[in-house]
Amino acid sequence: MIDVSKAMERREKQREELLQAAETMIAAKGLAGLKTRELAQRIGVANGAVYNLVEDVDDLVLRVGSRTLARLDAALIAAEAEGPAEPVEMLSRIAVAYCDFAAENTQLWRALFEHRMQVGRDVPEWSVAKQMELFQHIHGPLVALFPKRSPVELGVLARSLFSAVHGMVVLGLEQKLVAVPLDVLRREIALIVRAMVNGIVLEAKQARTCGGGQTHIQVD
Amino acid sequence: MIDVSKAMERREKQREELLQAAETMIAAKGLAGLKTRELAQRIGVANGAVYNLVEDVDDLVLRVGSRTLARLDAALIAAEAEGPAEPVEMLSRIAVAYCDFAAENTQLWRALFEHRMQVGRDVPEWSVAKQMELFQHIHGPLVALFPKRSPVELGVLARSLFSAVHGMVVLGLEQKLVAVPLDVLRREIALIVRAMVNGIVLEAKQARTCGGGQTHIQVD
Repeated sequence: MIDVSKAMERREKQREELLQAAETMIAAKGLAGLKTRELAQRIGVANGAVYNLVEDVDDLVLRVGSRTLARLDAALIAAEAEGPAEPVEMLSRIAVAYCDFAAENTQLWRALFEHRMQVGRDVPEWSVAKQMELFQHIHGPLVALFPKRSPVELGVLARSLFSAVHGMVVLGLEQKLVAVPLDVLRREIALIVRAMVNGIVLEAKQARTCGGGQTHIQVD
Repeated sequence: MIDVSKAMERREKQREELLQAAETMIAAKGLAGLKTRELAQRIGVANGAVYNLVEDVDDLVLRVGSRTLARLDAALIAAEAEGPAEPVEMLSRIAVAYCDFAAENTQLWRALFEHRMQVGRDVPEWSVAKQMELFQHIHGPLVALFPKRSPVELGVLARSLFSAVHGMVVLGLEQKLVAVPLDVLRREIALIVRAMVNGIVLEAKQARTCGGGQTHIQVD
Protein backbone atom coordinates (compact mmCIF):
# COMPACT_ATOMS: atom_id res chain seq x y z
CA MET A 1 0.00 0.00 0.00
CA ILE A 2 2.79 2.42 0.84
CA ASP A 3 4.41 1.84 -2.53
CA VAL A 4 1.16 2.45 -4.38
CA SER A 5 0.57 5.71 -2.56
CA LYS A 6 4.14 6.81 -3.25
CA ALA A 7 3.73 5.97 -6.93
CA MET A 8 0.52 8.00 -7.01
CA GLU A 9 2.25 10.89 -5.33
CA ARG A 10 5.06 10.83 -7.86
CA ARG A 11 2.59 10.64 -10.70
CA GLU A 12 0.73 13.66 -9.30
CA LYS A 13 4.00 15.58 -9.01
CA GLN A 14 4.94 14.69 -12.60
CA ARG A 15 1.50 15.68 -13.85
CA GLU A 16 1.91 19.03 -12.12
CA GLU A 17 5.30 19.46 -13.81
CA LEU A 18 3.81 18.50 -17.15
CA LEU A 19 0.98 21.04 -16.84
CA GLN A 20 3.40 23.73 -15.72
CA ALA A 21 5.70 23.01 -18.69
CA ALA A 22 2.73 22.96 -21.10
CA GLU A 23 1.48 26.26 -19.71
CA THR A 24 4.91 27.85 -20.14
CA MET A 25 5.12 26.51 -23.70
CA ILE A 26 1.66 27.78 -24.70
CA ALA A 27 2.33 31.16 -23.04
CA ALA A 28 5.52 31.49 -25.11
CA LYS A 29 4.52 30.07 -28.48
CA GLY A 30 0.76 29.71 -28.50
CA LEU A 31 -1.31 26.57 -28.85
CA ALA A 32 0.37 25.73 -32.18
CA GLY A 33 3.75 25.70 -30.41
CA LEU A 34 2.75 22.92 -28.00
CA LYS A 35 4.88 19.84 -28.72
CA THR A 36 4.39 16.86 -26.42
CA ARG A 37 7.77 15.42 -27.37
CA GLU A 38 9.51 18.57 -26.14
CA LEU A 39 7.35 18.49 -23.03
CA ALA A 40 8.42 14.93 -22.23
CA GLN A 41 12.04 16.01 -22.60
CA ARG A 42 11.59 19.02 -20.34
CA ILE A 43 10.06 17.04 -17.50
CA GLY A 44 12.45 14.13 -18.04
CA VAL A 45 10.11 11.29 -19.03
CA ALA A 46 9.89 9.09 -22.14
CA ASN A 47 7.66 10.37 -24.99
CA GLY A 48 4.91 7.85 -24.38
CA ALA A 49 4.95 8.44 -20.62
CA VAL A 50 3.18 11.79 -21.12
CA TYR A 51 0.04 9.75 -21.78
CA ASN A 52 0.27 8.10 -18.38
CA LEU A 53 -0.16 11.59 -16.93
CA VAL A 54 -2.89 12.96 -19.21
CA GLU A 55 -5.33 11.12 -21.49
CA ASP A 56 -4.37 12.89 -24.72
CA VAL A 57 -3.45 16.33 -26.07
CA ASP A 58 -7.05 17.55 -25.65
CA ASP A 59 -6.97 16.59 -21.99
CA LEU A 60 -3.61 18.35 -21.57
CA VAL A 61 -4.83 21.55 -23.24
CA LEU A 62 -8.09 21.54 -21.24
CA ARG A 63 -6.19 21.11 -17.96
CA VAL A 64 -3.93 24.05 -18.82
CA GLY A 65 -7.10 25.96 -19.80
CA SER A 66 -8.59 25.15 -16.42
CA ARG A 67 -5.55 26.74 -14.73
CA THR A 68 -5.93 29.82 -16.94
CA LEU A 69 -9.62 30.06 -16.00
CA ALA A 70 -8.72 29.78 -12.29
CA ARG A 71 -6.34 32.72 -12.63
CA LEU A 72 -8.93 34.70 -14.59
CA ASP A 73 -11.44 33.93 -11.83
CA ALA A 74 -9.02 35.32 -9.23
CA ALA A 75 -8.46 38.47 -11.35
CA LEU A 76 -12.23 39.06 -11.62
CA ILE A 77 -12.73 38.54 -7.88
CA ALA A 78 -10.00 41.13 -7.24
CA ALA A 79 -11.70 43.57 -9.65
CA GLU A 80 -15.03 43.09 -7.91
CA ALA A 81 -13.50 44.02 -4.55
CA GLU A 82 -11.75 47.08 -5.97
CA GLY A 83 -14.77 49.38 -6.13
CA PRO A 84 -18.44 49.91 -5.32
CA ALA A 85 -20.92 47.02 -5.51
CA GLU A 86 -23.27 49.06 -7.76
CA PRO A 87 -24.05 46.52 -10.52
CA VAL A 88 -23.35 48.67 -13.61
CA GLU A 89 -19.98 49.78 -12.25
CA MET A 90 -19.25 46.22 -11.18
CA LEU A 91 -19.92 44.88 -14.69
CA SER A 92 -17.79 47.61 -16.18
CA ARG A 93 -14.87 46.79 -13.83
CA ILE A 94 -15.16 43.09 -14.59
CA ALA A 95 -15.04 43.79 -18.33
CA VAL A 96 -11.92 45.94 -18.00
CA ALA A 97 -10.31 43.28 -15.80
CA TYR A 98 -11.08 40.71 -18.51
CA CYS A 99 -9.34 42.95 -21.06
CA ASP A 100 -6.32 43.35 -18.77
CA PHE A 101 -6.11 39.60 -18.19
CA ALA A 102 -6.22 38.97 -21.94
CA ALA A 103 -3.54 41.60 -22.55
CA GLU A 104 -1.24 40.08 -19.90
CA ASN A 105 -1.88 36.42 -20.77
CA THR A 106 -2.55 36.74 -24.48
CA GLN A 107 -1.44 33.30 -25.65
CA LEU A 108 -3.01 31.37 -22.77
CA TRP A 109 -6.23 33.35 -23.15
CA ARG A 110 -6.26 32.79 -26.92
CA ALA A 111 -5.74 29.06 -26.38
CA LEU A 112 -9.04 28.91 -24.48
CA PHE A 113 -10.88 29.93 -27.64
CA GLU A 114 -8.67 28.42 -30.34
CA HIS A 115 -8.64 24.91 -28.97
CA ARG A 116 -10.80 22.44 -30.88
CA MET A 117 -11.41 18.88 -29.67
CA GLN A 118 -10.43 15.95 -31.91
CA VAL A 119 -13.16 15.25 -34.43
CA GLY A 120 -16.05 13.38 -32.82
CA ARG A 121 -15.10 14.29 -29.25
CA ASP A 122 -17.07 16.66 -27.04
CA VAL A 123 -15.56 18.97 -24.46
CA PRO A 124 -15.85 16.98 -21.20
CA GLU A 125 -18.42 18.05 -18.62
CA TRP A 126 -15.84 19.11 -16.01
CA SER A 127 -14.29 21.58 -18.46
CA VAL A 128 -17.66 23.03 -19.55
CA ALA A 129 -18.55 23.42 -15.85
CA LYS A 130 -15.32 25.37 -15.22
CA GLN A 131 -16.16 27.74 -18.08
CA MET A 132 -19.72 28.21 -16.85
CA GLU A 133 -18.55 29.01 -13.32
CA LEU A 134 -16.93 32.19 -14.61
CA PHE A 135 -20.30 33.45 -15.81
CA GLN A 136 -21.27 33.84 -12.15
CA HIS A 137 -19.28 37.09 -12.18
CA ILE A 138 -21.66 38.53 -14.77
CA HIS A 139 -24.72 36.77 -13.39
CA GLY A 140 -24.48 38.34 -9.91
CA PRO A 141 -24.77 41.99 -10.98
CA LEU A 142 -27.46 41.08 -13.54
CA VAL A 143 -29.61 39.44 -10.84
CA ALA A 144 -29.25 42.65 -8.79
CA LEU A 145 -30.42 44.72 -11.78
CA PHE A 146 -33.19 42.41 -12.99
CA PRO A 147 -34.35 40.40 -9.98
CA LYS A 148 -37.50 39.15 -11.70
CA ARG A 149 -35.89 37.71 -14.82
CA SER A 150 -35.48 33.95 -15.08
CA PRO A 151 -32.05 32.27 -14.89
CA VAL A 152 -32.42 31.35 -18.58
CA GLU A 153 -33.10 34.97 -19.60
CA LEU A 154 -30.19 36.20 -17.52
CA GLY A 155 -28.01 33.44 -18.93
CA VAL A 156 -28.68 34.65 -22.48
CA LEU A 157 -28.02 38.24 -21.46
CA ALA A 158 -24.80 37.31 -19.63
CA ARG A 159 -23.55 35.49 -22.72
CA SER A 160 -24.41 38.43 -24.97
CA LEU A 161 -22.61 40.90 -22.73
CA PHE A 162 -19.60 38.62 -22.49
CA SER A 163 -19.48 38.04 -26.27
CA ALA A 164 -19.65 41.77 -26.94
CA VAL A 165 -16.78 42.53 -24.55
CA HIS A 166 -14.82 39.54 -25.84
CA GLY A 167 -15.18 40.89 -29.40
CA MET A 168 -13.81 44.26 -28.38
CA VAL A 169 -10.87 42.62 -26.63
CA VAL A 170 -10.12 40.26 -29.54
CA LEU A 171 -10.14 42.91 -32.26
CA GLY A 172 -8.47 45.44 -29.96
CA LEU A 173 -5.58 43.18 -28.96
CA GLU A 174 -5.08 41.66 -32.40
CA GLN A 175 -4.86 45.17 -33.80
CA LYS A 176 -6.97 43.96 -36.70
CA LEU A 177 -8.62 46.92 -38.43
CA VAL A 178 -7.20 49.94 -36.64
CA ALA A 179 -4.51 49.78 -33.99
CA VAL A 180 -5.82 50.97 -30.65
CA PRO A 181 -3.68 51.62 -27.56
CA LEU A 182 -4.61 49.53 -24.50
CA ASP A 183 -5.74 52.53 -22.41
CA VAL A 184 -8.16 53.62 -25.16
CA LEU A 185 -9.46 50.06 -25.45
CA ARG A 186 -10.03 49.84 -21.68
CA ARG A 187 -11.89 53.17 -21.69
CA GLU A 188 -14.03 52.10 -24.64
CA ILE A 189 -14.90 48.79 -23.01
CA ALA A 190 -15.98 50.54 -19.80
CA LEU A 191 -18.06 52.99 -21.83
CA ILE A 192 -19.72 50.34 -23.99
CA VAL A 193 -20.52 48.06 -21.05
CA ARG A 194 -22.14 50.92 -19.14
CA ALA A 195 -24.04 51.95 -22.27
CA MET A 196 -25.25 48.38 -22.97
CA VAL A 197 -26.40 47.77 -19.44
CA ASN A 198 -27.99 51.21 -19.03
CA GLY A 199 -29.68 50.72 -22.41
CA ILE A 200 -31.13 47.38 -21.29
CA VAL A 201 -32.32 48.97 -18.03
CA LEU A 202 -33.90 51.82 -20.03
CA GLU A 203 -35.66 49.37 -22.34
CA ALA A 204 -36.99 47.38 -19.38
CA LYS A 205 -38.28 50.60 -17.79
CA GLN A 206 -39.97 51.69 -21.01
CA ALA A 207 -41.57 48.27 -21.44
CA ARG A 208 -43.02 48.58 -17.94
CA THR A 209 -44.13 52.17 -18.47
CA CYS A 210 -45.92 51.33 -21.71
CA GLY A 211 -47.42 48.14 -20.33
CA GLY A 212 -48.60 49.37 -16.94
CA GLY A 213 -49.16 53.02 -17.75
CA GLN A 214 -46.89 53.93 -14.82
CA THR A 215 -43.37 55.20 -14.53
CA HIS A 216 -41.08 53.13 -12.38
CA ILE A 217 -37.67 54.06 -11.24
CA GLN A 218 -36.69 50.58 -10.22
CA VAL A 219 -36.32 48.12 -13.05
CA ASP A 220 -38.32 44.86 -13.22
CA MET B 1 0.02 46.02 -79.88
CA ILE B 2 -2.93 43.77 -80.61
CA ASP B 3 -1.08 40.75 -79.28
CA VAL B 4 -0.14 42.54 -76.08
CA SER B 5 -3.72 43.57 -75.44
CA LYS B 6 -4.95 40.03 -76.14
CA ALA B 7 -2.37 38.62 -73.76
CA MET B 8 -3.50 41.07 -71.09
CA GLU B 9 -7.10 40.12 -71.68
CA ARG B 10 -6.28 36.43 -71.29
CA ARG B 11 -4.29 37.12 -68.15
CA GLU B 12 -7.24 39.08 -66.72
CA LYS B 13 -9.57 36.19 -67.53
CA GLN B 14 -7.22 33.68 -65.89
CA ARG B 15 -6.86 35.84 -62.82
CA GLU B 16 -10.65 35.98 -62.56
CA GLU B 17 -10.77 32.15 -62.82
CA LEU B 18 -8.05 31.87 -60.20
CA LEU B 19 -9.89 34.13 -57.73
CA GLN B 20 -13.14 32.29 -58.37
CA ALA B 21 -11.47 28.92 -57.75
CA ALA B 22 -9.73 30.22 -54.60
CA GLU B 23 -13.03 31.59 -53.31
CA THR B 24 -14.74 28.25 -53.88
CA MET B 25 -11.88 26.43 -52.15
CA ILE B 26 -11.88 28.73 -49.08
CA ALA B 27 -15.70 28.56 -48.89
CA ALA B 28 -15.49 24.76 -48.82
CA LYS B 29 -12.43 24.09 -46.68
CA GLY B 30 -11.51 27.34 -44.98
CA LEU B 31 -8.29 29.30 -45.31
CA ALA B 32 -6.22 26.29 -44.21
CA GLY B 33 -7.65 24.32 -47.15
CA LEU B 34 -6.28 26.73 -49.77
CA LYS B 35 -3.65 24.92 -51.86
CA THR B 36 -2.16 26.87 -54.75
CA ARG B 37 -1.03 23.67 -56.49
CA GLU B 38 -4.64 22.44 -56.62
CA LEU B 39 -5.74 25.86 -57.80
CA ALA B 40 -3.26 25.80 -60.68
CA GLN B 41 -4.61 22.39 -61.67
CA ARG B 42 -8.23 23.58 -61.50
CA ILE B 43 -7.68 26.55 -63.79
CA GLY B 44 -5.32 24.60 -66.04
CA VAL B 45 -2.02 26.44 -65.61
CA ALA B 46 1.43 25.31 -64.45
CA ASN B 47 2.11 25.59 -60.70
CA GLY B 48 4.43 28.57 -61.00
CA ALA B 49 2.06 30.37 -63.39
CA VAL B 50 -0.24 31.23 -60.49
CA TYR B 51 2.36 33.82 -59.49
CA ASN B 52 2.05 35.53 -62.85
CA LEU B 53 -1.57 36.21 -61.90
CA VAL B 54 -1.15 37.23 -58.25
CA GLU B 55 1.94 38.37 -56.36
CA ASP B 56 1.85 35.71 -53.66
CA VAL B 57 -0.56 33.81 -51.40
CA ASP B 58 -1.20 36.94 -49.31
CA ASP B 59 -2.19 38.83 -52.43
CA LEU B 60 -4.49 35.98 -53.49
CA VAL B 61 -6.19 35.78 -50.09
CA LEU B 62 -6.61 39.56 -49.89
CA ARG B 63 -8.18 39.67 -53.36
CA VAL B 64 -10.65 36.95 -52.39
CA GLY B 65 -11.25 38.92 -49.19
CA SER B 66 -11.97 41.99 -51.23
CA ARG B 67 -14.70 40.06 -53.12
CA THR B 68 -16.17 38.90 -49.79
CA LEU B 69 -16.19 42.48 -48.52
CA ALA B 70 -17.95 43.64 -51.72
CA ARG B 71 -20.71 41.08 -51.17
CA LEU B 72 -20.97 42.06 -47.51
CA ASP B 73 -21.24 45.68 -48.61
CA ALA B 74 -24.14 44.77 -50.92
CA ALA B 75 -25.87 42.83 -48.11
CA LEU B 76 -25.58 45.82 -45.76
CA ILE B 77 -26.90 48.22 -48.42
CA ALA B 78 -29.91 45.91 -48.90
CA ALA B 79 -30.50 45.82 -45.11
CA GLU B 80 -30.37 49.61 -44.95
CA ALA B 81 -33.08 49.90 -47.60
CA GLU B 82 -35.31 47.31 -45.91
CA GLY B 83 -36.67 49.53 -43.12
CA PRO B 84 -36.88 53.00 -41.62
CA ALA B 85 -33.91 55.37 -41.74
CA GLU B 86 -34.13 55.98 -37.96
CA PRO B 87 -30.48 55.56 -36.91
CA VAL B 88 -30.89 53.13 -33.99
CA GLU B 89 -33.09 50.80 -36.04
CA MET B 90 -30.71 51.17 -38.96
CA LEU B 91 -27.72 50.12 -36.83
CA SER B 92 -29.68 47.20 -35.46
CA ARG B 93 -30.64 46.00 -38.97
CA ILE B 94 -27.06 46.33 -40.18
CA ALA B 95 -25.83 44.24 -37.22
CA VAL B 96 -28.36 41.48 -37.91
CA ALA B 97 -27.45 41.55 -41.61
CA TYR B 98 -23.80 41.15 -40.62
CA CYS B 99 -24.75 38.11 -38.55
CA ASP B 100 -26.73 36.63 -41.46
CA PHE B 101 -23.87 37.21 -43.86
CA ALA B 102 -21.45 35.48 -41.49
CA ALA B 103 -23.85 32.55 -41.06
CA GLU B 104 -24.23 32.13 -44.82
CA ASN B 105 -20.58 32.68 -45.74
CA THR B 106 -18.91 31.32 -42.64
CA GLN B 107 -15.59 30.20 -44.08
CA LEU B 108 -15.11 33.24 -46.33
CA TRP B 109 -16.06 35.56 -43.48
CA ARG B 110 -13.70 33.75 -41.10
CA ALA B 111 -10.89 34.02 -43.62
CA LEU B 112 -11.14 37.83 -43.40
CA PHE B 113 -10.13 37.66 -39.74
CA GLU B 114 -7.89 34.58 -39.69
CA HIS B 115 -5.57 35.70 -42.45
CA ARG B 116 -2.15 36.89 -41.30
CA MET B 117 0.38 38.44 -43.66
CA GLN B 118 3.80 36.83 -44.01
CA VAL B 119 6.13 37.99 -41.24
CA GLY B 120 7.43 41.48 -41.92
CA ARG B 121 4.74 42.39 -44.45
CA ASP B 122 1.95 44.90 -43.85
CA VAL B 123 -1.56 44.62 -45.24
CA PRO B 124 -1.40 46.78 -48.41
CA GLU B 125 -3.16 50.16 -48.45
CA TRP B 126 -5.80 49.14 -51.01
CA SER B 127 -6.96 46.28 -48.78
CA VAL B 128 -7.08 48.42 -45.62
CA ALA B 129 -9.10 51.01 -47.60
CA LYS B 130 -11.63 48.32 -48.65
CA GLN B 131 -12.10 47.31 -45.00
CA MET B 132 -12.49 50.91 -43.88
CA GLU B 133 -15.12 51.60 -46.55
CA LEU B 134 -17.47 49.17 -44.82
CA PHE B 135 -17.37 51.28 -41.67
CA GLN B 136 -19.34 53.91 -43.58
CA HIS B 137 -22.44 51.80 -42.87
CA ILE B 138 -21.98 52.35 -39.13
CA HIS B 139 -20.64 55.86 -39.50
CA GLY B 140 -23.74 57.24 -41.28
CA PRO B 141 -26.27 56.49 -38.51
CA LEU B 142 -23.76 57.59 -35.84
CA VAL B 143 -23.34 60.99 -37.52
CA ALA B 144 -27.15 61.34 -37.52
CA LEU B 145 -27.24 60.55 -33.77
CA PHE B 146 -24.19 62.55 -32.71
CA PRO B 147 -23.77 65.33 -35.28
CA LYS B 148 -21.32 67.31 -33.15
CA ARG B 149 -18.83 64.54 -32.47
CA SER B 150 -15.57 64.55 -34.40
CA PRO B 151 -14.82 61.94 -37.08
CA VAL B 152 -12.15 60.47 -34.79
CA GLU B 153 -14.60 60.09 -31.88
CA LEU B 154 -17.18 58.51 -34.18
CA GLY B 155 -14.50 56.27 -35.65
CA VAL B 156 -13.66 54.90 -32.21
CA LEU B 157 -17.35 54.41 -31.43
CA ALA B 158 -18.01 52.71 -34.77
CA ARG B 159 -15.16 50.29 -34.15
CA SER B 160 -16.39 49.53 -30.64
CA LEU B 161 -19.91 48.81 -31.86
CA PHE B 162 -18.59 46.66 -34.66
CA SER B 163 -16.26 44.70 -32.36
CA ALA B 164 -19.08 44.04 -29.90
CA VAL B 165 -21.39 42.72 -32.63
CA HIS B 166 -18.54 40.76 -34.19
CA GLY B 167 -17.87 39.10 -30.82
CA MET B 168 -21.49 38.04 -30.51
CA VAL B 169 -21.45 36.61 -34.03
CA VAL B 170 -18.13 34.79 -33.55
CA LEU B 171 -19.04 33.08 -30.27
CA GLY B 172 -22.63 32.51 -31.44
CA LEU B 173 -21.68 30.85 -34.72
CA GLU B 174 -18.79 28.87 -33.30
CA GLN B 175 -21.12 27.51 -30.64
CA LYS B 176 -18.30 28.01 -28.19
CA LEU B 177 -19.68 28.16 -24.64
CA VAL B 178 -23.39 27.52 -25.05
CA ALA B 179 -25.02 26.59 -28.33
CA VAL B 180 -27.46 29.25 -29.45
CA PRO B 181 -29.90 28.90 -32.37
CA LEU B 182 -29.47 31.49 -35.13
CA ASP B 183 -32.86 33.15 -34.53
CA VAL B 184 -32.03 33.68 -30.84
CA LEU B 185 -28.62 35.08 -31.80
CA ARG B 186 -30.21 37.52 -34.29
CA ARG B 187 -32.71 38.70 -31.67
CA GLU B 188 -29.99 39.14 -29.06
CA ILE B 189 -27.81 41.12 -31.47
CA ALA B 190 -30.70 43.46 -32.32
CA LEU B 191 -31.45 43.90 -28.60
CA ILE B 192 -27.83 44.54 -27.61
CA VAL B 193 -27.20 47.00 -30.45
CA ARG B 194 -30.31 49.00 -29.53
CA ALA B 195 -29.31 48.90 -25.86
CA MET B 196 -25.73 50.00 -26.58
CA VAL B 197 -26.75 52.87 -28.81
CA ASN B 198 -29.60 54.01 -26.57
CA GLY B 199 -27.24 53.78 -23.61
CA ILE B 200 -24.68 55.99 -25.37
CA VAL B 201 -27.45 58.47 -26.27
CA LEU B 202 -28.59 58.46 -22.63
CA GLU B 203 -25.07 59.07 -21.37
CA ALA B 204 -24.61 61.97 -23.79
CA LYS B 205 -27.91 63.47 -22.64
CA GLN B 206 -26.95 63.10 -18.97
CA ALA B 207 -23.55 64.65 -19.63
CA ARG B 208 -25.30 67.66 -21.16
CA THR B 209 -27.87 67.85 -18.40
CA CYS B 210 -25.25 67.78 -15.68
CA GLY B 211 -22.95 70.14 -17.52
CA GLY B 212 -25.47 72.76 -18.58
CA GLY B 213 -28.07 72.31 -15.87
CA GLN B 214 -30.72 71.83 -18.54
CA THR B 215 -32.60 68.81 -19.88
CA HIS B 216 -32.27 68.23 -23.59
CA ILE B 217 -34.22 65.79 -25.63
CA GLN B 218 -31.97 66.02 -28.64
CA VAL B 219 -28.54 64.55 -28.21
CA ASP B 220 -25.34 66.55 -28.70
